[in-house]
Amino acid sequence: MLLTVLYIIAITAEAMTGALSAGRRSMDLFGVVLVACVTALGGGSVRDMLLGHYPLTWVRHPEYLALTAGAALLTVFIAPLMRHLRSLFLVLDAVGLVAFTLIGCRVSLEMGHSLLIAAVSGVITGVFGGILRDIFCNDVPLIFRRELYASVSFASAWCFLICIQLELPNEQAMLITLFAGFLFRLLAIRFRWEMPKFVYQDDPQQNG
Amino acid sequence: MLLTVLYIIAITAEAMTGALSAGRRSMDLFGVVLVACVTALGGGSVRDMLLGHYPLTWVRHPEYLALTAGAALLTVFIAPLMRHLRSLFLVLDAVGLVAFTLIGCRVSLEMGHSLLIAAVSGVITGVFGGILRDIFCNDVPLIFRRELYASVSFASAWCFLICIQLELPNEQAMLITLFAGFLFRLLAIRFRWEMPKFVYQDDPQQNG
Amino acid sequence: MLLTVLYIIAITAEAMTGALSAGRRSMDLFGVVLVACVTALGGGSVRDMLLGHYPLTWVRHPEYLALTAGAALLTVFIAPLMRHLRSLFLVLDAVGLVAFTLIGCRVSLEMGHSLLIAAVSGVITGVFGGILRDIFCNDVPLIFRRELYASVSFASAWCFLICIQLELPNEQAMLITLFAGFLFRLLAIRFRWEMPKFVYQDDPQQNG
Repeated sequence: MLLTVLYIIAITAEAMTGALSAGRRSMDLFGVVLVACVTALGGGSVRDMLLGHYPLTWVRHPEYLALTAGAALLTVFIAPLMRHLRSLFLVLDAVGLVAFTLIGCRVSLEMGHSLLIAAVSGVITGVFGGILRDIFCNDVPLIFRRELYASVSFASAWCFLICIQLELPNEQAMLITLFAGFLFRLLAIRFRWEMPKFVYQDDPQQNG
Repeated sequence: MLLTVLYIIAITAEAMTGALSAGRRSMDLFGVVLVACVTALGGGSVRDMLLGHYPLTWVRHPEYLALTAGAALLTVFIAPLMRHLRSLFLVLDAVGLVAFTLIGCRVSLEMGHSLLIAAVSGVITGVFGGILRDIFCNDVPLIFRRELYASVSFASAWCFLICIQLELPNEQAMLITLFAGFLFRLLAIRFRWEMPKFVYQDDPQQNG
Repeated sequence: MLLTVLYIIAITAEAMTGALSAGRRSMDLFGVVLVACVTALGGGSVRDMLLGHYPLTWVRHPEYLALTAGAALLTVFIAPLMRHLRSLFLVLDAVGLVAFTLIGCRVSLEMGHSLLIAAVSGVITGVFGGILRDIFCNDVPLIFRRELYASVSFASAWCFLICIQLELPNEQAMLITLFAGFLFRLLAIRFRWEMPKFVYQDDPQQNG
C-alpha cells in the first residue's frame, strides 16, 4: 500500500523529468509522452524483460500508463513553473529512486533469485529509466557524471536485503531503507558527493 | 492474407529507408543490413518482447529476415535511383505505418489485453522501428520532429479498435482503417501538419 | 568445458574494452561497471530476450556478473598499462567474438530453431555487446566502420553450422570454427580488410 503510493509519486515525478528532457530537444507532444513513459516505466520494463517477468506492470495496470501520459502533458502546460520547482523535483526524484529500487528487489526475491540478482534488479529498476531517457534524447547518460545516483540505488538495495536477511518484517525493512536511501541521496546532492571518475584517453599517436 | 501482403510491402519499404540511413552514416554492408532489419522488424520485436509474445515473427518466419536483408542490399545497388523514388517511398511508408499498427493491435487483442494496451501495442509496432533506426545511427529520433507520424499510428489504432467494438467484421475494420490512416498520413505530409512542439530551455544561470 | 573457459576469457576481455570506452566518456565508477556489463553480457542478453530463452545466463550464474564488474574495476587501476596491451586485447577480443558466436548458435539449435536463425543468433551474441556499448557511450557503432568484425562472426556461425550439418562431433566442429574464425579475424586486422561501405548523401537541395 505504502509502496503503491510511493510508486505513483515516483512515476509521476519521473514522467515530468522525462517530458522536460524531450522539451530540451524540441520534440512534439507525442515524443514528450513517449520519452516520459520510457523514463517512468522503462526501468521496470527492462527489469521484467531481463527476468522474464510477464506481464509487465503497465500492461497489467494500464492506468499507470495513462497517469504517465497525463503527467507528461501537464508538464508541457506548467513548464514555465518548473524552474521554480527544481528543489521539489530533486526530492520527489530521490523518493522515486529508492521506491523503484525497493520494488525491483522485491520482484526479484519473489521470483526466487539470489541476493546479488535482487540487488542488480533493484538498481536496474531505479536507474534504467533515466538511462533510456538520455539514449532517446541522444545524450551520454547523465547519471554517471553527476552526484551519486546509481550508488544510492545500490546502497538502498543492499540496505533492504540486509534488513530482510536479519528477518525484520517487510514493512520495517522498507521504511528503514526509504529513510536511509532518501537521506543518502539528499546528502549527496547537498555536498556534491560524486563517485570517482575514470578518465581515459588513448595515446594520440595511436588514435584512429 | 491482405495483411500479409501489406506486411511484406511494409517491411521491404522500411528496410530500404533503414539502409539509406545507414548509408548516410557511411556504414559497411553489414551495418546496412543490421540497420535495415532493426528498422523493418524492430517495432514488432519490441512489441513482442514487451508483451512476452514468443516466438517473435522473424524467428517463426525467417524468410522475412531474408527478405529484409535482400531489400537492404538491393538498396545499396539502386541508391542513385532512390532520390527519384522519394514520393513512392513516402506512400509505401504510409501503407507500412498503418499496416504495422493494425498488426500490433491484433496481436494485443488476441492475447486478451485491454483496448488501451492494444492501441499502445499498435503504436509501438508502427513507430519503434524508426526510433531504433535513429538510435542506431546516433540521431535524435526524427519522427517526433516532423509531420504527423506517431499520431497517424495512434489514430489508426483507435479507428480499428472502435470498428471492432462496433462489431464490424474484421476485414471491413481493417480496410476502413487502412484507407483512413493512409489518407490522414498523406494529408499530413501534403499540408505539413505537425504536432505542437514542446520547447523547453533551462534558465542559463541554473544550467550545468 | 572448453567453451566455458573461452566464455570466461571473452567476457573478461569485453568487460575491459567496455570499461575503457566508459573512461573515454569520463564516466564514474558505476558507469564503468554498467558499460562493462552491457558490453560483456549484453549480446547474450539481447539474444535470450529475442528468443525468449529464460533465465538469462547471468541471472542463472551471478558469478559471471561479479567477474565482469571485477574486471571493469581492475581496468580502472591498470588503465595506464592498457596502451601497451593493445595487441593482446585484439587477440582476446577475437577469441571472444568467435566463442560468443559459437555459444549463440548452440543456444538457438538447442531451442530447435532453423539454421538461419541459429546463424543470426550467433551473430547477435557476437556483436551486440559492442553495439550496445557504443549506444550507451553515444557513439555511432564502430563495428560497422572498421575491419571485418560482424562478418567474422557471420562466417564463423556458418562454419560451425556446416560442420554440424556434416555430422562432425560437436567438439571437433567447435575447434575447427574457433581456429578458422580466429585466423580470419587476425588476417582482417593485419591486412585491414574491410567490408565495402555504403555512402549515401541526400541531394543538398532536398535536405532538411
